Amino acid sequence: MTNFLTEDFLLQSGTAKRLYHDFAKDLPIIDYHNHLPPAAIAQNKNFKNITDLWLGGDHYKWRALRTLGVEEKYITGNASDEEKFLKWAEAVPYTIRNPLYHWTHMELKDPFGIRELLSEKTGKNIYDSCNELLKEPGFTPQALLTHFKVEMVGTTDDPADTLVHHKQIATSRFEVKVWPSFRPDRVLNISGGDQYRRYVQSLAEVAKIEITDLSSLLDALKNRVEYFNEAGCRISDHGLSSIPYPSFNYSQIEAGFKKVLAGGDAGAAGIKESFSAFVLLELCKMYRQKGWVQQFHLGAQRSNNSRMQNLIGADTGFDSISDEVQAASMAAFFNHLDKEDTLPKTIIYNLNPAYNAVFASMTGNFQGEGIKGKIQFGSAWWFLDQLDGMKEQINTLSNLGLISCFIGMLTDSRSFLSYSRHEYFRRLLCNIFAEDIEKGLIPADIDWIGKMIQDICYYNAKTYFNITRLT
Amino acid sequence: MTNFLTEDFLLQSGTAKRLYHDFAKDLPIIDYHNHLPPAAIAQNKNFKNITDLWLGGDHYKWRALRTLGVEEKYITGNASDEEKFLKWAEAVPYTIRNPLYHWTHMELKDPFGIRELLSEKTGKNIYDSCNELLKEPGFTPQALLTHFKVEMVGTTDDPADTLVHHKQIATSRFEVKVWPSFRPDRVLNISGGDQYRRYVQSLAEVAKIEITDLSSLLDALKNRVEYFNEAGCRISDHGLSSIPYPSFNYSQIEAGFKKVLAGGDAGAAGIKESFSAFVLLELCKMYRQKGWVQQFHLGAQRSNNSRMQNLIGADTGFDSISDEVQAASMAAFFNHLDKEDTLPKTIIYNLNPAYNAVFASMTGNFQGEGIKGKIQFGSAWWFLDQLDGMKEQINTLSNLGLISCFIGMLTDSRSFLSYSRHEYFRRLLCNIFAEDIEKGLIPADIDWIGKMIQDICYYNAKTYFNITRLT
Amino acid sequence: MTNFLTEDFLLQSGTAKRLYHDFAKDLPIIDYHNHLPPAAIAQNKNFKNITDLWLGGDHYKWRALRTLGVEEKYITGNASDEEKFLKWAEAVPYTIRNPLYHWTHMELKDPFGIRELLSEKTGKNIYDSCNELLKEPGFTPQALLTHFKVEMVGTTDDPADTLVHHKQIATSRFEVKVWPSFRPDRVLNISGGDQYRRYVQSLAEVAKIEITDLSSLLDALKNRVEYFNEAGCRISDHGLSSIPYPSFNYSQIEAGFKKVLAGGDAGAAGIKESFSAFVLLELCKMYRQKGWVQQFHLGAQRSNNSRMQNLIGADTGFDSISDEVQAASMAAFFNHLDKEDTLPKTIIYNLNPAYNAVFASMTGNFQGEGIKGKIQFGSAWWFLDQLDGMKEQINTLSNLGLISCFIGMLTDSRSFLSYSRHEYFRRLLCNIFAEDIEKGLIPADIDWIGKMIQDICYYNAKTYFNITRLT
Repeated sequence: MTNFLTEDFLLQSGTAKRLYHDFAKDLPIIDYHNHLPPAAIAQNKNFKNITDLWLGGDHYKWRALRTLGVEEKYITGNASDEEKFLKWAEAVPYTIRNPLYHWTHMELKDPFGIRELLSEKTGKNIYDSCNELLKEPGFTPQALLTHFKVEMVGTTDDPADTLVHHKQIATSRFEVKVWPSFRPDRVLNISGGDQYRRYVQSLAEVAKIEITDLSSLLDALKNRVEYFNEAGCRISDHGLSSIPYPSFNYSQIEAGFKKVLAGGDAGAAGIKESFSAFVLLELCKMYRQKGWVQQFHLGAQRSNNSRMQNLIGADTGFDSISDEVQAASMAAFFNHLDKEDTLPKTIIYNLNPAYNAVFASMTGNFQGEGIKGKIQFGSAWWFLDQLDGMKEQINTLSNLGLISCFIGMLTDSRSFLSYSRHEYFRRLLCNIFAEDIEKGLIPADIDWIGKMIQDICYYNAKTYFNITRLT
Repeated sequence: MTNFLTEDFLLQSGTAKRLYHDFAKDLPIIDYHNHLPPAAIAQNKNFKNITDLWLGGDHYKWRALRTLGVEEKYITGNASDEEKFLKWAEAVPYTIRNPLYHWTHMELKDPFGIRELLSEKTGKNIYDSCNELLKEPGFTPQALLTHFKVEMVGTTDDPADTLVHHKQIATSRFEVKVWPSFRPDRVLNISGGDQYRRYVQSLAEVAKIEITDLSSLLDALKNRVEYFNEAGCRISDHGLSSIPYPSFNYSQIEAGFKKVLAGGDAGAAGIKESFSAFVLLELCKMYRQKGWVQQFHLGAQRSNNSRMQNLIGADTGFDSISDEVQAASMAAFFNHLDKEDTLPKTIIYNLNPAYNAVFASMTGNFQGEGIKGKIQFGSAWWFLDQLDGMKEQINTLSNLGLISCFIGMLTDSRSFLSYSRHEYFRRLLCNIFAEDIEKGLIPADIDWIGKMIQDICYYNAKTYFNITRLT
Repeated sequence: MTNFLTEDFLLQSGTAKRLYHDFAKDLPIIDYHNHLPPAAIAQNKNFKNITDLWLGGDHYKWRALRTLGVEEKYITGNASDEEKFLKWAEAVPYTIRNPLYHWTHMELKDPFGIRELLSEKTGKNIYDSCNELLKEPGFTPQALLTHFKVEMVGTTDDPADTLVHHKQIATSRFEVKVWPSFRPDRVLNISGGDQYRRYVQSLAEVAKIEITDLSSLLDALKNRVEYFNEAGCRISDHGLSSIPYPSFNYSQIEAGFKKVLAGGDAGAAGIKESFSAFVLLELCKMYRQKGWVQQFHLGAQRSNNSRMQNLIGADTGFDSISDEVQAASMAAFFNHLDKEDTLPKTIIYNLNPAYNAVFASMTGNFQGEGIKGKIQFGSAWWFLDQLDGMKEQINTLSNLGLISCFIGMLTDSRSFLSYSRHEYFRRLLCNIFAEDIEKGLIPADIDWIGKMIQDICYYNAKTYFNITRLT
């Protein structure tokens, strides 16, 4: 008998079981970064069906299907929801050893209570069973969040967003904290042509500030930071291939920005990095003033397949891992802020596992008096969000920093079913500490180790994000 | 009792033994990429002695000897074959933990039936025993290939090659398929001076097309692709430090190429990458038209020791691992082809283990409808062709792609004895899956896992290369 | 019962215990590279207290304290020694899984005989106990070196140093060999402004050679190499982010150097790499002539926090790991020397674990006839000096080179208590070989494996550095 998907899944020793069941399992979840749609939480309607909930936006699954040679029709095309689900069911056995195989079956087990393995053979039954359950009141967005003991949800939102759904949730009876995060990636993309100009215009409108130069751009952003802050936002987020080097010629980027606003794109690409550096530095100072936490998701090489992007848009499964250098510009950027004491609490997430040691050692350069783990090496992200990737992040952080200060896991997901990823992380974490105990690498002081684990799974994040306050 | 080199070598559990002995062990071998000399297969003569067969071209062993401080005389110099063998015998115990230690003893065990460890003490006896056996009919090239159940051999051949030996083999009674592979590396090296001009001349002669500009160069290459295709070639191969960025100024490279043809090398180095990009893109389109598979061996930094290269030539053990960036140009290159639907089936091999995740995630960007695993992250290569390297390739591919679609192992070897590397890979693969089963990471469904393993060891490659057809 | 810190610490099998206790444990220590203060050895006074000895210069501990948010006052500030120790005591339980946790308790156990875990609760008692012991004659610098069976100490010294303490030690009755190492990093920093000019001046004075151009700079350096050699130096050392590409325009760097000497810094940064390349090449030739070993510590990105550097200086815990490329310039540099047969024995140390394979494979390009392991991939360094880092270095070296030729561990430490790191390394090494034996990956030939281990732990370094000679 193996413990595949049993209550002792991933727990390879009695010590591991004890650590998980006695210390980690029942803690609430602080999911401080994800991509859940706030509208869905606010409206709290039942999902159309399991395909809608599970396959509608999940580019991890899409990539797997494409690797198997499945036609796009059954992935993002016009096949029926049932056809799409059955294609996925057929594919699942071939995803063995990929995290999708675990995620799929963990999500079927909880909340659906399905313990059968998904396959061509079981697909139809499971499709029907899930869809039946999804009609029930226990399967709405809010009910799922409550079911998974989620205490806080950190969504990802554009500065131009009105946050209407967050406000609606905050004034409702729903008790889970749903905080917006400020993600200004689009502001930085000065070489984006008309799309960029339209975006700046929308920002100007929502901020009620005419944007004509760098100064008014910053005013508009300050306005939005203020607005987000009032709506309960305490976190920002940035997706960048790498952090820009913090040097710029002000008059050059001012001239370039004005030219772009006036409709000219010549030269915009040439100042993209310096413009980004300037705006980002100013944003960081605003965050610091508000006491926010800033996040950097680094190392993705996005939109590699232009044919498919033209067909079905960005963020559809054609991104991969970058090998761009990270260390010099990142250090210079943080140093620039630290010198003038404007560096906020910061989380750096790394997508290329070859850079784990660079990231982990970087955090040690900029820690802050009076703050436990001010600079965090964030949890394994995207392609690395799997057992080996998480284990490497945990071990590198342990060896080069202090795992005791780690704020732990987040889903980074678009799906309400992804909360099993916290369970996955907790099981792995308990097993790692237990293995150390079994090997005599750390003392067999279960209470102390149990406390460390509870800190990493819950309490460190609670303190770091100051979640005790009322929203 | 340990299972060092026993029938259960590398198999750490009952499950591992079952998977290997019941599913993997007896499958035929598809060795789709190696450097076996077609002349030797065609002529099928007995080898001179074990030094000739084992040490004559094996720069892995040469490097080990040099690391031990052995004089070059005993490596590539004029010492006698027996002296060279005895130096190697003396060295072998000092290669412990290096794959050479395993390869050496696996090769002595099969086909020679020698179970003693090679050392200074046993060297002379083993030398004599091997040489006796090598005179027997069971030890010719063809007999060895048959003995190892090789179904297909993919050699590596220059576009200027006449393929006379392949033709001879194809029309002989020898049943193993021996396919040429098209490896046009020399065509790209525009900065090679007189050597390059001589090469272009040889290409022109064999193609019977005067090469005076880019257009006639492409005509000649097209001629050779056609010629290779008729001789049974279905695979191309490229050795590059990285894939060139797919941008070029046509008139500039045209002018440069003409200048080089006329004897001038000034500026050739400056257009090397753009010239390569252009020619390579055109070649890829030809491969696609023919339905070939293309291979890219990436990440080597070659010929680092110019003193030794002057003495004994290239490819003699003075190459190492590059840290050149790979991701941006590789994605742009494949995207360029994919956009116009001219991207062939492609295998990318990675030499720097720090780039495994980059390569594995890259494959997901360009998969193809109707083809299982169109873009492959190839097996661990050269320096990485050892237990840790193979394990990391298998795990990264599993986590970031689908191991179920993997076409598995190849020898990449110059030696007829290297077929134990397939055994090595199969044992490791079975043990990895078995360990997952033992730990409850995957279901204990031996039949299903056994099928996956059989696919990876044999059937996926058979399908991918369409090997059922008659040559 | 676990074997945490027992005599079988880290030894996971009977074989591991046997290898460690029968072969490795009792060997002397050759600590060929560290940062011990020669003055302290020469003067041989008792330490002020455990804070002085343990926390005074240990930026590893400082980083951990900063990560926990401890005020700088208690780290490098004006808190009392006891307050500082108690802050550290309080922090120690939170360093779990970091090498500091092991180092701390190994050092308390040996030489202090303290087996309690350090924490807030035990801090005061342990502080008092250590301080009592530190007054005893068995705890002077010389006594500690003798206690740890150190046979040779390789300190790190500036070319301008008079080596007065080394001379004093050499003529004393103290039997441990204390060799200086020649570390000319400051000579290369041509963009250092007045600080650089002062340094060149000090070099000129000690060499009694006026430095006015490149030629006189080299004369002065040659003088110092000679001087160091006479004082027993046989090793040089260099700390560089990467090895400079070996190309330079002589008249350009000559002009630049003269301009700098005359007080002008414009353009100095622009010739920093070429100037470094030139001077370093000349230095390497001098080392080779003297038969020295040269070391390169590569991959650090230093002094990332300018605010803290201004406050408390360099080398205070604000360095991290670089992702700069290494392979092309390193190969070209060594090739430049090898071509003219002026490449000394060389050790390359790597700080970024993603480059382990690059470094390990690089060594194979430049090995030397008649010398076992002429080019060494050095032991895991700084941030990598922990169980995972050492294991990866050992495994990469095993797979890509020959572990049998490895010269093994060094402390690289500023502290006389760090000799437990050799014990740590030896336990790990024995466990690695034992695990291979247990798994049947290598033969269970304990005597042969034991000999390999003894070579790696002691005899290879003894031969490599030719330590039998009298100083």
